Amino acid sequence: MTLVLKLGGSVITDKTEPETVDDDSLDRAIDAIGAHLGTDSASTTVEGVPAIDGGAELVLIHGAGSFGHYHADEHGVSTTAGTHDAAGVLAIHDAMERLNGYVLDRLHDRGVPALPVGPLSAAARDAKGALELSTTVERQLAEGFVPVLYGDVIAREGKGATIVSGDELVVRLANRPDADRVGLCSTVPGVLDADGEVVDRIESIEAASGYLGGSEATDVTGGMYGKIDRLLSLRAPASVFGLDELEDFLAGGSPGTIVDRFSA
Amino acid sequence: MTLVLKLGGSVITDKTEPETVDDDSLDRAIDAIGAHLGTDSASTTVEGVPAIDGGAELVLIHGAGSFGHYHADEHGVSTTAGTHDAAGVLAIHDAMERLNGYVLDRLHDRGVPALPVGPLSAAARDAKGALELSTTVERQLAEGFVPVLYGDVIAREGKGATIVSGDELVVRLANRPDADRVGLCSTVPGVLDADGEVVDRIESIEAASGYLGGSEATDVTGGMYGKIDRLLSLRAPASVFGLDELEDFLAGGSPGTIVDRFSA
Repeated sequence: MTLVLKLGGSVITDKTEPETVDDDSLDRAIDAIGAHLGTDSASTTVEGVPAIDGGAELVLIHGAGSFGHYHADEHGVSTTAGTHDAAGVLAIHDAMERLNGYVLDRLHDRGVPALPVGPLSAAARDAKGALELSTTVERQLAEGFVPVLYGDVIAREGKGATIVSGDELVVRLANRPDADRVGLCSTVPGVLDADGEVVDRIESIEAASGYLGGSEATDVTGGMYGKIDRLLSLRAPASVFGLDELEDFLAGGSPGTIVDRFSA
Repeated sequence: MTLVLKLGGSVITDKTEPETVDDDSLDRAIDAIGAHLGTDSASTTVEGVPAIDGGAELVLIHGAGSFGHYHADEHGVSTTAGTHDAAGVLAIHDAMERLNGYVLDRLHDRGVPALPVGPLSAAARDAKGALELSTTVERQLAEGFVPVLYGDVIAREGKGATIVSGDELVVRLANRPDADRVGLCSTVPGVLDADGEVVDRIESIEAASGYLGGSEATDVTGGMYGKIDRLLSLRAPASVFGLDELEDFLAGGSPGTIVDRFSA
């Protein structure tokens, strides 16, 4: 039983200012996670393993927001366009590691036994772009730690280094055999239809293409069409919701939009 | 053709002061590496790939010195004794990442296309202690980057997290099929015999046990006996030498002590 939760970059950062954390939103998100895991008031067991009361194990992923995107743009790096400029790679990665540091600090303040899993070190791509990931996430989870990953830049065969988005990491980690719930906490309360209303459920990309705008409406890391298309490939149901609904999701609710091809 | 080079923690840090870099020694080491790779004055190729003139690819590993050991001791963590305390793991790792940052800064100043491969993210151990490592080092090397690893703390099945030493990483990376030379740059000019003279060549642990002091003379990461014993397991010859001999080693020389079971 593992819960895969992504905190969107636009939720935890102020996208209008370079490298600026949205302190209030990040605090609210981390408070909800600490309360869910029961680590705020947890005693440790005899073996020193933190007592996590929430049941499910948790993998956390966060986006780049105003940290990574600026540097990625500056160095012309995307999920498909690579660079061999090590200084550029390091500029992107260092910015993301700074954001990750803020997130980890707050998690530790709430007693969450979080550890970083930096994609630059943990991951790479082969010549076809397939993502290779270290065993670290599995091992950390099994030992009671909460792995925290993030959008980053990683080596890719033939292209130097390219971006790996938080969403791509979500999909990869949600395909673990014991991942049973996936949550994407965003700045919107769910996927919106043509009237601006939250769609309850998406079971196929065809049914949703009317309001998702088609595959041409993509940004550097895929846009909403690509995001939903990837979530539909998962075995586990995924929920897209806003920060107001994070507690509800963690408590087992189904806020926002559920993306689940198997319920059809 | 890959060169695996370790800079000992006692070479690049001042072990008498917590978290203190030995600036002069680190500068000398990095100057030698930059000069060897020809990146000091390198132009970039049409594709933006840095032109490395030195021929062989390079993997760099550095030790912990006055950065990691203090925190590891404080939290009771060694290569065999683990911890489930995420704050302790992060304290050890953050110290090593600070040291790695200094090393990377200097490498980039000399034009070396270095990228960090942090073991906490890249590696883990199974229940028997076997080291699992991401594909990142291979991918970075193939794209012309210089991966830089370091002694760190990593997740281990059943024990939370334990230390991985720089020497263990050297052995693992030196067993890559194309690793043909291994160098350990230390504060001594080589392995010393009972008279304090540098031993030219070691071909078996039995022949060396007289001056290595036996397997009981170990420190937290193995001591000289364990180090030589592991180097004797390698396919490639390994050289143990001092900072004065680094240029000679990089130029293809065989300074200090050669450890090579196959020359027997």
